[in-house]
Amino acid sequence: MAENSLLAFGAHPDDIEFGCGGVIARETQAGRKAHFVICSKGEAGTNGTPDQRANESSEAAKILGATVEFLELDGDSHLEMRVAHKIKLAEIIRREKPSTVLATSCVENQHPDHARLGQLVRDAARMARYGGLEELKNYDVHEIEQLFYYAVTPDGEPTDVMPVLIDISASEVIAAWTSAMLAHGSQGATRNYLDLQLTRAKLLGARARVEYASALYPNESLVFQSLSQVGRGARNF
Amino acid sequence: MAENSLLAFGAHPDDIEFGCGGVIARETQAGRKAHFVICSKGEAGTNGTPDQRANESSEAAKILGATVEFLELDGDSHLEMRVAHKIKLAEIIRREKPSTVLATSCVENQHPDHARLGQLVRDAARMARYGGLEELKNYDVHEIEQLFYYAVTPDGEPTDVMPVLIDISASEVIAAWTSAMLAHGSQGATRNYLDLQLTRAKLLGARARVEYASALYPNESLVFQSLSQVGRGARNF
Amino acid sequence: MAENSLLAFGAHPDDIEFGCGGVIARETQAGRKAHFVICSKGEAGTNGTPDQRANESSEAAKILGATVEFLELDGDSHLEMRVAHKIKLAEIIRREKPSTVLATSCVENQHPDHARLGQLVRDAARMARYGGLEELKNYDVHEIEQLFYYAVTPDGEPTDVMPVLIDISASEVIAAWTSAMLAHGSQGATRNYLDLQLTRAKLLGARARVEYASALYPNESLVFQSLSQVGRGARNF
Amino acid sequence: MAENSLLAFGAHPDDIEFGCGGVIARETQAGRKAHFVICSKGEAGTNGTPDQRANESSEAAKILGATVEFLELDGDSHLEMRVAHKIKLAEIIRREKPSTVLATSCVENQHPDHARLGQLVRDAARMARYGGLEELKNYDVHEIEQLFYYAVTPDGEPTDVMPVLIDISASEVIAAWTSAMLAHGSQGATRNYLDLQLTRAKLLGARARVEYASALYPNESLVFQSLSQVGRGARNF
Amino acid sequence: MAENSLLAFGAHPDDIEFGCGGVIARETQAGRKAHFVICSKGEAGTNGTPDQRANESSEAAKILGATVEFLELDGDSHLEMRVAHKIKLAEIIRREKPSTVLATSCVENQHPDHARLGQLVRDAARMARYGGLEELKNYDVHEIEQLFYYAVTPDGEPTDVMPVLIDISASEVIAAWTSAMLAHGSQGATRNYLDLQLTRAKLLGARARVEYASALYPNESLVFQSLSQVGRGARNF
Amino acid sequence: MAENSLLAFGAHPDDIEFGCGGVIARETQAGRKAHFVICSKGEAGTNGTPDQRANESSEAAKILGATVEFLELDGDSHLEMRVAHKIKLAEIIRREKPSTVLATSCVENQHPDHARLGQLVRDAARMARYGGLEELKNYDVHEIEQLFYYAVTPDGEPTDVMPVLIDISASEVIAAWTSAMLAHGSQGATRNYLDLQLTRAKLLGARARVEYASALYPNESLVFQSLSQVGRGARNF
Repeated sequence: MAENSLLAFGAHPDDIEFGCGGVIARETQAGRKAHFVICSKGEAGTNGTPDQRANESSEAAKILGATVEFLELDGDSHLEMRVAHKIKLAEIIRREKPSTVLATSCVENQHPDHARLGQLVRDAARMARYGGLEELKNYDVHEIEQLFYYAVTPDGEPTDVMPVLIDISASEVIAAWTSAMLAHGSQGATRNYLDLQLTRAKLLGARARVEYASALYPNESLVFQSLSQVGRGARNF
Repeated sequence: MAENSLLAFGAHPDDIEFGCGGVIARETQAGRKAHFVICSKGEAGTNGTPDQRANESSEAAKILGATVEFLELDGDSHLEMRVAHKIKLAEIIRREKPSTVLATSCVENQHPDHARLGQLVRDAARMARYGGLEELKNYDVHEIEQLFYYAVTPDGEPTDVMPVLIDISASEVIAAWTSAMLAHGSQGATRNYLDLQLTRAKLLGARARVEYASALYPNESLVFQSLSQVGRGARNF
Repeated sequence: MAENSLLAFGAHPDDIEFGCGGVIARETQAGRKAHFVICSKGEAGTNGTPDQRANESSEAAKILGATVEFLELDGDSHLEMRVAHKIKLAEIIRREKPSTVLATSCVENQHPDHARLGQLVRDAARMARYGGLEELKNYDVHEIEQLFYYAVTPDGEPTDVMPVLIDISASEVIAAWTSAMLAHGSQGATRNYLDLQLTRAKLLGARARVEYASALYPNESLVFQSLSQVGRGARNF
Repeated sequence: MAENSLLAFGAHPDDIEFGCGGVIARETQAGRKAHFVICSKGEAGTNGTPDQRANESSEAAKILGATVEFLELDGDSHLEMRVAHKIKLAEIIRREKPSTVLATSCVENQHPDHARLGQLVRDAARMARYGGLEELKNYDVHEIEQLFYYAVTPDGEPTDVMPVLIDISASEVIAAWTSAMLAHGSQGATRNYLDLQLTRAKLLGARARVEYASALYPNESLVFQSLSQVGRGARNF
Repeated sequence: MAENSLLAFGAHPDDIEFGCGGVIARETQAGRKAHFVICSKGEAGTNGTPDQRANESSEAAKILGATVEFLELDGDSHLEMRVAHKIKLAEIIRREKPSTVLATSCVENQHPDHARLGQLVRDAARMARYGGLEELKNYDVHEIEQLFYYAVTPDGEPTDVMPVLIDISASEVIAAWTSAMLAHGSQGATRNYLDLQLTRAKLLGARARVEYASALYPNESLVFQSLSQVGRGARNF
Repeated sequence: MAENSLLAFGAHPDDIEFGCGGVIARETQAGRKAHFVICSKGEAGTNGTPDQRANESSEAAKILGATVEFLELDGDSHLEMRVAHKIKLAEIIRREKPSTVLATSCVENQHPDHARLGQLVRDAARMARYGGLEELKNYDVHEIEQLFYYAVTPDGEPTDVMPVLIDISASEVIAAWTSAMLAHGSQGATRNYLDLQLTRAKLLGARARVEYASALYPNESLVFQSLSQVGRGARNF
């Protein structure tokens, strides 16, 4: 993967698009590479066959300027905390060498897979830099620069971590994001979800004094070379 | 005040130096302007006359490349939450037009004035942008970009806010910071304090994978134009 | 005041309308009495004279089916924690004998008066039932049934208290709420605020599986005669 | 199961009785149906054979007006977070179609099975409404109305969630609850536990201004059609 | 005051007795000196004249083996955060030279004076050791060993600080505590309060594996010369 | 094991030494017995063979006056939450009969095994006292007195639990601790780790008003026979 690239993990075919598609569009439109790893084909959902959903994901990823792969862990709604999964995820991190990793937040929410995947990715990002892991010997150790969590729905938003807010107001960003969400056409409720996500982004935008913003939750303190590189505070109303 | 300038508030003559002197040195050495407002002359301290302490502060500010002024509120150890104080502080913010404001954290710690001053500055930063305040009519409304808190000692560090870590490892930064702390010679325990602060910075540096780092606690979420502007995560050990 | 009545406190002429106007409309349309106490005339705001703003408040209250009075405490942006204020607020509680009291939340947010007023009302509600307070001897002791906080803007929402969500989807409720917000015409940004509030209510509605919902934050645990009286959980998406 | 019914899960034969038996009695005496699912026979306890304990549970359930079944998961003290368990629990939820589900709290406490079971039930309640789960195809999707946690002992009480307090003061409620606890006669310490639970209920009652109260911890925000349906606040002393 | 002595502050005539009377009895019966400072005569209460209440306090203190004085601050229910109060309280600390200070907790609860007094005592304990405070020049600087908070009622118990639990099971301790609570005979509800407090102590005792225990909340981390001096953990049920 | 003995668990060969070696030295030099259980041979680390690391551990334990054993669970970086592990750990607790147990903290940090081991030991300590566990029938039930967590690095320090601080300033304690850390010579970064740990201890010492201190985090409230046995508060600066 190219330098300064993004690697995003989702538990289901539409998690990334709904949870942080705006940020992905913002970054890829600015020239960063992005790759998606989707850890089920949504086979426990009410609508859409696995094939349909995989196709929709591929379409959505293309719209967002990202490549995509599917990873078989335990299957939709069946994800467990297994070291074997962490190894697989760490291997992908070593192979892709991203600077930034994005994953579903570790906060319990309406889908049990989300928090579980966040925890697995967090541990995998650590294991990607341990030198002695036999199962990972095929790839060089890799140390990522940042791990951020996104929340697929508001109930997955951590309340004890201050998010960084990314300005996604540019019309071409919103357009790409919207198209990517609409690509998941098999999902009956897609329209409502789209609405929900744009509403969230608008409300966050109001806090950030921009039109639309998206929240990412850092896994650890952020380090800056100087204070002048730190973003401005979201103070409004 | 020049664009992109810093305005730092301290409750006592040495709060700024001990609590965030390294960051100040880092920024002024990179060309930013800085101004200190010190809200007592430390007259409740065991050692040093008010005059001595004011002189030491002036000396320390000079070393850190900052200008300094003294503000009379209620006197050392006597600070109360009064709107009249907020007005005075807001007036200074309007006059100085800083982009960044630094204040002692709002966490209760070994000196009651610290948390009180943090709260007063927070409110003052808000009032600086309200249009209809009669007492502030002499100055134009001013909206700051960022409000950060610093902790004079470890017990003032908020535990519920993830700090941003600023790399202050450059030898000229550490040298200026050290000199500024030593300028407070009337304080018998200065040597120990100096040691304490360098120890804190070294420990934080270890977390941030640099030699020395200093922690600032944002008052609200930080907004970035793009994810690539966000600092890297402090992941180490 | 009639039995089962509501008493709402606001720090500025539009706090109640923007923060919980939908709930007020819901309740008054169902026959409950409501009374507003507004603790300044917004004289520190950029737009609108005190007289204009008082008129707008009266108009908005009428739309929401509530009566209104203005209370002079320290003036807009000048509110301090004084026992004298608590006495005044407790006196109103004794006079109005509400079952439910609503106040701005105690969480620090973009306007310092909001959290202060929440704290004052909380203490006043307690003092309203102390038998021996000389200054309150003109009124009988009164014990309210519930104290809820509302958040004028999202940054005033407590993150450590689970809110109760009130369904305000009925079209006549939304219509009255919208009109009441629009009654504050002197405020240049009213349109944006209206938008912000409807967006918040829509997002909460999505969580509560209704069209629009509003969040109230209880000051203490809620007591029910039986579990079957407790509302259903907001589980969605 | 009848409309508006309760489904309560316990990790051991006496968890439900000790943790929320008073609430169960209150509801069944008012005509609601209740069913207990007990996920071990307490075979790791010091006293009582599995058979004895199952008999005691059946007797206690009868006293509380509930039906009961035993579910074999990993055995007493051996409970692990397995998706297979969630499937079993979700199947029961689909079969019983309860409006309210009760489970041991997710807070770590003196018995590891308690928190584990709370987490399993939480996920099961979500899975009960996912349309595409193959293993659950024999039953229709079911969406519960409420998920509440109870704490078997005080160290399992969440400190970050405000409980709802249910008035269980009626003498016939206390009588049934007491009998149900005493039904667990094989447990040497039953008397002390009984005492402990009545003491807890009395202390909570003092807060709620009734004789005895029991605390339930909602898994998510509660939604009400109107504010007047929300219980009164527990404000006392 | 003698070495190793206790200084307890209460906002009203019965706060100390109800909130931590058992601990006081335990310590004085073991030979420690104790002194009470009561910061109002309960003049806002429904029952009892100030004179009656002062007499009851003196009687209760005698039963607990403590001396007592009354301090006039702002009067019952009128306590404000004033530096002048802190000075008075600090002066008493310097005069009495206690090793341990006890005060009402800083958690908001059913009486506003309680949290306020806790905050004032906390700051006073700090000011007692500042060398340069003019108003305190008549007394030598004094550094206390420990500051603990007690909760008059359960809603004043901090939920974010782990208490230390003191065994107060000895029958002569419970007897003295009970008598001291009963000494406040003018209070109509004394019987209920007594009951409430013994119930709390019994429940805590169950957690601590003793008959009765009382909880104190340390203001800061506790320092021990060795791990073997640290009390055993409260693990029970 | 002798009365009043310590049992410390580490996930890797150097966890105990780096995380709480100073406390161990303090206690063994005062005559307490200590035993280490190390749950992997660090085989996923970059440097050092399993044999080398086991030798280093044995050497370090000897320096700290402790005995040591190695326990095979899932291997370095592979630790999962399995009941089978808890049984093994509980068996060791029953066999060793320690009064105090020390384990890595349950806070997620730079190594996933640390938090996992803390959780396993916590549950094992409970299971050690359950009478009916078949797998543990070979050993008598044992109830420990205290469970404390230590943090291998600062990111493993709980922020929601107040630690107890142990004075480890004695020069022979620091000498033994330093030697024990240096015994892990295969680890290239040992020097830096040593430095980090001494820096942490020095900073904590400054808070505790001693030269060096170490923090232990209690798993539950601590019980004392009398208030005079409770350590003094760490109040400094």
